[in-house]
Amino acid sequence: MAAYRETIGIDTRAGVQAIDITERVVAAVAKSGVSEGLACVFTPSSTSAIVTNEFEPGIMEEDIPKALERLFPASIPYGHERRWHDGNGHSHVRATFLGPSLTLPVVDGRAALGTWQQVVFLELDNKPRRREVMVQVVGDAAGRE
Amino acid sequence: MAAYRETIGIDTRAGVQAIDITERVVAAVAKSGVSEGLACVFTPSSTSAIVTNEFEPGIMEEDIPKALERLFPASIPYGHERRWHDGNGHSHVRATFLGPSLTLPVVDGRAALGTWQQVVFLELDNKPRRREVMVQVVGDAAGRE
Amino acid sequence: MAAYRETIGIDTRAGVQAIDITERVVAAVAKSGVSEGLACVFTPSSTSAIVTNEFEPGIMEEDIPKALERLFPASIPYGHERRWHDGNGHSHVRATFLGPSLTLPVVDGRAALGTWQQVVFLELDNKPRRREVMVQVVGDAAGRE
Repeated sequence: MAAYRETIGIDTRAGVQAIDITERVVAAVAKSGVSEGLACVFTPSSTSAIVTNEFEPGIMEEDIPKALERLFPASIPYGHERRWHDGNGHSHVRATFLGPSLTLPVVDGRAALGTWQQVVFLELDNKPRRREVMVQVVGDAAGRE
Repeated sequence: MAAYRETIGIDTRAGVQAIDITERVVAAVAKSGVSEGLACVFTPSSTSAIVTNEFEPGIMEEDIPKALERLFPASIPYGHERRWHDGNGHSHVRATFLGPSLTLPVVDGRAALGTWQQVVFLELDNKPRRREVMVQVVGDAAGRE
Repeated sequence: MAAYRETIGIDTRAGVQAIDITERVVAAVAKSGVSEGLACVFTPSSTSAIVTNEFEPGIMEEDIPKALERLFPASIPYGHERRWHDGNGHSHVRATFLGPSLTLPVVDGRAALGTWQQVVFLELDNKPRRREVMVQVVGDAAGRE
């Protein structure tokens, strides 16, 4: 049994910003020494999310931001805003629905992602942030003989 | 390698009710003896969800319930309702989109939650329920030397 | 510590198609020899999702497809479509919001699903596909004495 952890530092800008962290996740899994197991990618934050899909500008810069604005508009009133006045009520609701965590299998020492499936950090806050995303890998170091 | 499990009992009321279970999740992880690993918080139910965000009334009592009603109104027709007549078709659809499971890293023996990130049980059913939420922790008891 | 993996092959048809894979997930967990741990069900794809809810036609054939069409209509313009012309921009956005992964506890050698909680593969693409869903189980083979 092995457990291995890395932290991925990310500097973001405001608004919906999608950042491809696939390479760094794949590298962490490779370094973990885990042959068969699970990897969890996690953002310890309430105004960002971890998602996965094809990382291409049509989806990441247009379709997902538009869907978020359609479902959780920035312009409607939010209880969070009325109490705290930090302008990011919509960010909290978006993060709640998308979730902070992606768990995926580790297979033969590799993150078992599909060809068109990138791991994406989504900044949802209304100001630039320094983010620390964790990758925690657990499993069998020796593999199945 | 260690695995440790606890069950968190919750008595809920009808409608969208958010219950902060962070302390009980954090305590279960601390008791697990796992130093580096993963914790999974899971509701074995199809009309409730596990989410995470800042637990404050603006988000939990207003913004999330309003978003759920906007996206999955209780008042529109549901196929589930037409067949089963238990009045909670919207609850099932809401639970499907939010999900029953949150997986997070265990780091240095602690649940790796952010400061503004609480673990929340969401009752989505239309009647009070007794719920049993599981916390399953797996990982390395000795930590990484 | 044990890790065990199976692949579930699925042939799908176009559109929103829900396929109940509970039995195959439950069987994989039983075969794993893991007594206490976690199971991750994962689709390595960007146009399908793994969800869980009651598998009955009202929810699976009517309520979830209708909710997806209401929130992410197939008929509106998508940036992905404008660039790639494969007609499945809505599929990618739906998959991003629903997610490819379900992690659940393994308790006493069994997948800890609720009575009304089936594991469901959702085909979201606009053409029939051959899918390979992974079930990765990790945990303690001996259980807690």
